Amino acid sequence: MGIFDIRPVQYTGGKMIILDQTRLPKEEIYEEMQTREDVWDAIYKLKVRGAPAIGVAAAYGLCLAVRDCPEEDMECFEMRLKEDAEYLATARPTAVNLSWALKRLVRHFEELRPKTVQQAKKELLLEARRIQEEDESACLAMGQYGLSLLRPGMGILTHCNAGALATSRYGTCLAPIYLGQEQGYDFRVFADETRPLLQGARLTAWELQKSGVDVTLICDNMAASVMAKGWIDAVVVGCDRMAANGDGANKIGTFGAAVLAKEHGIPFYMYVPTSTIDLNTPTGSNIQIELRSGEEISRMWYREPMAPKGIKTYNPAFDVTPARYITAVITEKGIVKPPYEENLPKLFAKKK
Amino acid sequence: MGIFDIRPVQYTGGKMIILDQTRLPKEEIYEEMQTREDVWDAIYKLKVRGAPAIGVAAAYGLCLAVRDCPEEDMECFEMRLKEDAEYLATARPTAVNLSWALKRLVRHFEELRPKTVQQAKKELLLEARRIQEEDESACLAMGQYGLSLLRPGMGILTHCNAGALATSRYGTCLAPIYLGQEQGYDFRVFADETRPLLQGARLTAWELQKSGVDVTLICDNMAASVMAKGWIDAVVVGCDRMAANGDGANKIGTFGAAVLAKEHGIPFYMYVPTSTIDLNTPTGSNIQIELRSGEEISRMWYREPMAPKGIKTYNPAFDVTPARYITAVITEKGIVKPPYEENLPKLFAKKK
Repeated sequence: MGIFDIRPVQYTGGKMIILDQTRLPKEEIYEEMQTREDVWDAIYKLKVRGAPAIGVAAAYGLCLAVRDCPEEDMECFEMRLKEDAEYLATARPTAVNLSWALKRLVRHFEELRPKTVQQAKKELLLEARRIQEEDESACLAMGQYGLSLLRPGMGILTHCNAGALATSRYGTCLAPIYLGQEQGYDFRVFADETRPLLQGARLTAWELQKSGVDVTLICDNMAASVMAKGWIDAVVVGCDRMAANGDGANKIGTFGAAVLAKEHGIPFYMYVPTSTIDLNTPTGSNIQIELRSGEEISRMWYREPMAPKGIKTYNPAFDVTPARYITAVITEKGIVKPPYEENLPKLFAKKK
Repeated sequence: MGIFDIRPVQYTGGKMIILDQTRLPKEEIYEEMQTREDVWDAIYKLKVRGAPAIGVAAAYGLCLAVRDCPEEDMECFEMRLKEDAEYLATARPTAVNLSWALKRLVRHFEELRPKTVQQAKKELLLEARRIQEEDESACLAMGQYGLSLLRPGMGILTHCNAGALATSRYGTCLAPIYLGQEQGYDFRVFADETRPLLQGARLTAWELQKSGVDVTLICDNMAASVMAKGWIDAVVVGCDRMAANGDGANKIGTFGAAVLAKEHGIPFYMYVPTSTIDLNTPTGSNIQIELRSGEEISRMWYREPMAPKGIKTYNPAFDVTPARYITAVITEKGIVKPPYEENLPKLFAKKK
């Protein structure tokens, strides 16, 4: 399974390398990050995207940002660390993993209070690696839990990309598909292209095809048709931020797919690493939705105008799927069923 | 209201002229049809599109096709007429208006049995003009009936283009918006871009903007979000073929919009000229759905690849919205409410 070796973010030999996902599926280009601005830009421009991968990129990005801090001045180092963390956190406001990973590194530094700047840099990098390793294990666990909800031969609809490219490895909602593929489950996957940035067409179709999974690309507005034909037995999607009551923000179009699934009696599974659950956000209405440039819609792939000049647009990057549409939430700690406001907090209670 | 003078198909001074809608909104190019192949091609390639406009183009196209028939041989003329009608009918199988208009011309010829080829040509052209004039009156009537269902200030979602560009004039589902605009209704229209061919972005946004209507362009997958925000009070769409039970085939994505409307308690109005109602088709499952090239999805606007090479696609041009999702059917003869299997046939009974 070559796909399992796709690593969208790596930090090896002192170099931070990312796979530029805006160039897929045409070109597979790996880019070295040189500055904190490179990392900010990579996150902002979606070269690295997907909540877990953003967390990993932010963690490594912070290590990169303070890499050249002078060795002698710990006070200066701490100031820079916090300033760089704040800076990187502004790249994408909706993705909770971004600030989560950055805060975790800062907290690690504060708890550890390393004696030398050199030691601080080393410890921060180790913590960033742990974030990546934990994400990889979490994806594997989500894949195993998720697979228990699926049966061989099923037709599965997915929206956007919550695959290997969106995480350290395996993906979240695509993890069970890869695990099933290894076990001969013969899923038939339908990938929504996911307008406007086409993560489904460019990324999900690419990584599934590369792994030999039977994948069919459709436009978002065809999901209702394939469901009506009886071709879909389950919908699997990722999540960018889940509120305490189970409302889940994910790529624009997710909510629509959930409504269609409900109408057709098809289970709708949201894959949510616990790092994406934000118990401090009571409901979906408290989630800030990023509005992006109208040019993403009005110019076809940023170039040829596909709408009249000066046309007004509305381009939210995400929507919120209310908890009542979500059949189950799959986390790395297990499957959570409604009522979510009771059952989601239990995930965290268990740990502590 | 300049928009009311947009005529996508004209036959004047012995010339058949069409507005090439594949070049909009970038260029407003009028093209003269020289041969029956030009007309077939214009319909096939969606230069002329929209059920009523296709009917008008087919009628004029048939007049054009037989224009150069020798004057002396009536038998040859009749053969050519029928052969050309059959040929033109193959350009798009789903649009009932195509074969409807062609059959109407052939029947007119058969009933009239003109004495000379010259007279036959003249009569056929008059009949084609009647088709166009009837369509224009029908659109105006649909606009008036439709407006009675709307209130000033409403937010209205539309999908694809059933506007002036899709008809002889006014449009079907956009007709009430234009009539309301003249009366200061101040509608806020949201136009689905309508993948893969973007008729909403290129055509609906263009004609509404040109008419001074407040229009906002969204991706198809954002409709659920704008509904959840409470911005939509009614959904208006056209129809390519309606079965006797009220199931309506229309541009792919219509069914999904209908499901979302139902879920949000928003009325869903389908605008259906009676020429589009096919009582010989019992239900939507009997409607043949055209499958189009996967390149429409996998290549961004036929050029840059936006999906991996060799990706499998499913690209139906239409979907069927079951009758139970349709709040009312607006025709040029009045508003039809459920049960459609009882009430649709009454439209035709009245006439005869």
